[in-house]
Amino acid sequence: MTASLRGFPELLPEERIVEQAVTDHLRSTFELHGFAAVETRAVEPLEVLLRKGEIDKEVYSVRRLGDPTDGDDRIALHYDLTVPFARYVLERADKLQFPFRRYQIQKVWRGEKPQAGRYREFTQADIDVVGREHLPFEYDVEVASVMAAALSGLHYLPAMRLQVNNRKLIEGFYLGIGARDVTRVMPIVDKLERDGTEVTEKRLRDDAGLEAEQISKVLALAEIYATDASFVEAVLRLGIAHPLLSEGLDELQTVIDRCSAFATSSFWVEADLSIARGLDYYTGTIFETRMAGHETLGSVCSGGRYESLASDAKRRFPGTGISLGVTRMLVPLLQSGYLRASRKVPTAVLVILPSEDDRAFCDQIAYSLRARGVPAEVSTSPDRYGEQLGYAARRGIPYAWFPAVREGSRNEVRDLERREQFEVADNWTPPDSDVQPSVIGHGVDE
Amino acid sequence: MTASLRGFPELLPEERIVEQAVTDHLRSTFELHGFAAVETRAVEPLEVLLRKGEIDKEVYSVRRLGDPTDGDDRIALHYDLTVPFARYVLERADKLQFPFRRYQIQKVWRGEKPQAGRYREFTQADIDVVGREHLPFEYDVEVASVMAAALSGLHYLPAMRLQVNNRKLIEGFYLGIGARDVTRVMPIVDKLERDGTEVTEKRLRDDAGLEAEQISKVLALAEIYATDASFVEAVLRLGIAHPLLSEGLDELQTVIDRCSAFATSSFWVEADLSIARGLDYYTGTIFETRMAGHETLGSVCSGGRYESLASDAKRRFPGTGISLGVTRMLVPLLQSGYLRASRKVPTAVLVILPSEDDRAFCDQIAYSLRARGVPAEVSTSPDRYGEQLGYAARRGIPYAWFPAVREGSRNEVRDLERREQFEVADNWTPPDSDVQPSVIGHGVDE
Repeated sequence: MTASLRGFPELLPEERIVEQAVTDHLRSTFELHGFAAVETRAVEPLEVLLRKGEIDKEVYSVRRLGDPTDGDDRIALHYDLTVPFARYVLERADKLQFPFRRYQIQKVWRGEKPQAGRYREFTQADIDVVGREHLPFEYDVEVASVMAAALSGLHYLPAMRLQVNNRKLIEGFYLGIGARDVTRVMPIVDKLERDGTEVTEKRLRDDAGLEAEQISKVLALAEIYATDASFVEAVLRLGIAHPLLSEGLDELQTVIDRCSAFATSSFWVEADLSIARGLDYYTGTIFETRMAGHETLGSVCSGGRYESLASDAKRRFPGTGISLGVTRMLVPLLQSGYLRASRKVPTAVLVILPSEDDRAFCDQIAYSLRARGVPAEVSTSPDRYGEQLGYAARRGIPYAWFPAVREGSRNEVRDLERREQFEVADNWTPPDSDVQPSVIGHGVDE
Repeated sequence: MTASLRGFPELLPEERIVEQAVTDHLRSTFELHGFAAVETRAVEPLEVLLRKGEIDKEVYSVRRLGDPTDGDDRIALHYDLTVPFARYVLERADKLQFPFRRYQIQKVWRGEKPQAGRYREFTQADIDVVGREHLPFEYDVEVASVMAAALSGLHYLPAMRLQVNNRKLIEGFYLGIGARDVTRVMPIVDKLERDGTEVTEKRLRDDAGLEAEQISKVLALAEIYATDASFVEAVLRLGIAHPLLSEGLDELQTVIDRCSAFATSSFWVEADLSIARGLDYYTGTIFETRMAGHETLGSVCSGGRYESLASDAKRRFPGTGISLGVTRMLVPLLQSGYLRASRKVPTAVLVILPSEDDRAFCDQIAYSLRARGVPAEVSTSPDRYGEQLGYAARRGIPYAWFPAVREGSRNEVRDLERREQFEVADNWTPPDSDVQPSVIGHGVDE
């Protein structure tokens, strides 16, 4: 027996049911909004992956065991879905219609040190809209509202907060207070939650060269958050003016207004002016997402606008997108028992086999259940009824069907959980809620 | 721009729609028959993969770029789904219920020389039932009929033939004619189609030490095929008797009888006594599948019974299963244009945006279409109607909705293909056949 590899989570069948329910819901939401499915190959040429230049130590390179010197094989596993998608767009620009909206739900690999919430193999679900040369701001609202629609439908998850900010807003604000180098201010503010106020003040003074009054304005801005447009008033009260700030405020207000429709008791979209995103390719709207009780995971769903998703010598493809860390979000909830499936198997009905001679008759009952969309199995051997029922119970199959094999007898179905048995018509179907396994949330996580 | 990597096929969005339709159908069929979804990690320890010992040169090893000396990282990408599943079962035997039926639809990687029908990255769809210590023959019938149900539902594919044979049958027959070493006969017969009769006769004589009469019996057996039980009579006419032969004949007859219900005008299950499967771990039923017009691809769906799917010092897990090469089957059909999607995008309706002031109204129409299960988009900007319709047409969106924005006006829908425009009620829904993109087959392949 082989020891498990750390950082490569594998789910039990009942856990996989939960993961599938989540990815099915995401896919369905994305497609209902007109996003096309794309899958890219798992590997990229090494130089494509290292262009971003930040995570080279985490890249898994790949080579043929039989021929490690093969010069074409300077390839590695992708560590996100954005870089492969950008390459995909560049290679096929003539065959795609722009603005091109795509979703992509796939595994990615990072050679990180395995620790809570960090995996070496994990699934991401990305949506992006990419334009050719230009992409209207309206698409920022679109990706925000599509992801909001997706997250607000995952009602069994802990409360989620989709936090939105805007790079133009914060950059304009920092310019407005007279910061000499805004690119130094942003990464410091990005670490505010981790570092605390005192360290951040010190770094803003020593590393970014800000005066005391500038620092207090920067921190005051980062304290503003609201689920409605009231944040605009709060920013204006700080008395800073800059054209870029105004533009950013308008954009952020539009995103917040238009996403407010998706708020539920456990999901909301808020303007959070502390969000900065460390990465420097974002140019406008930026997103992060916190899951209640799991704040230490950091953001489980992040993204934003970048004016150059992909480009080459002649062309530029701006994009806006957001990426949900499916594994990162689900695995802790599965491990703690917060989320579980209503049963371990797809099967809703086990058809009891009274004797080997009844097999064709029993097969027909199962066939007809499946034609009505009900997952069904026939017992493999005509064991004693107690044994057949035991098999169903161990696997969590909710119903057993006793076929009317004798002249004049009637079909009966046994509800294994309620321990009730009742006569049924030939076309009986379980209650809707039992046809497919479902996801049960709100566990004992906290 | 990066050149594509040979052997790593990537699909256009409209091709991916076809692939998704196929994998959705497979998944749904497998789940309707009670098969649970399993996904294993992409990598295995090298020694697990090399245990089979046959394809070491094709294995892609994986290492962290930042730390290639890391001793734990003797890992490689899996080249099939059977080896990882066997490891998964051994690791979790106490948490699974046996017989355990699972399906697995995932990518696998092989460093093969790229050529027609051979890929370095490809998707497989496997079903297996695995028992603990023993597994009744009945499960051979089950996996055969589940895959038959799956394949017979893919009505847009070229005609498919699921060929079944039985190792006991051929081994018993070879023993019955007095072959000294049946393990030498089997691989030679397995290559009959490729090598032709003359070469096969020579090899049976020189390599397997058979006499002329034995050779003629072996070749006569390999010529037998039938979609019904008539093959039994044909085998018996050859006048060979052996207990193992009888057992194999019984088993094969049962599989053929019980699968006959799935035959359609373009799919059938047949006993084909030339099928041998090269691999020596099969012990009973064996499967291959040919696709009409694409015989050079070889078998696109293969498998069988193996008495030791997984084992360790104390335990043995027999299994029976079958694996469909999704990429291998689909990519040639997509490339030749035999298969295509009815449109390029999920979107069924584009909601026209008359002016920026109408956005909330238009968003509501799209929201309500989606709530009825209809993929919908709203135009991003209030361009001239001709431009908005042009956007829909370029993307293959079949309908455009003109909202009733003016007092007293009515909603109208334009059918872009038929160039018709008609008034609609607020709850209009496209015809069922247009709600989702569909797969169109029977192209100009041959």
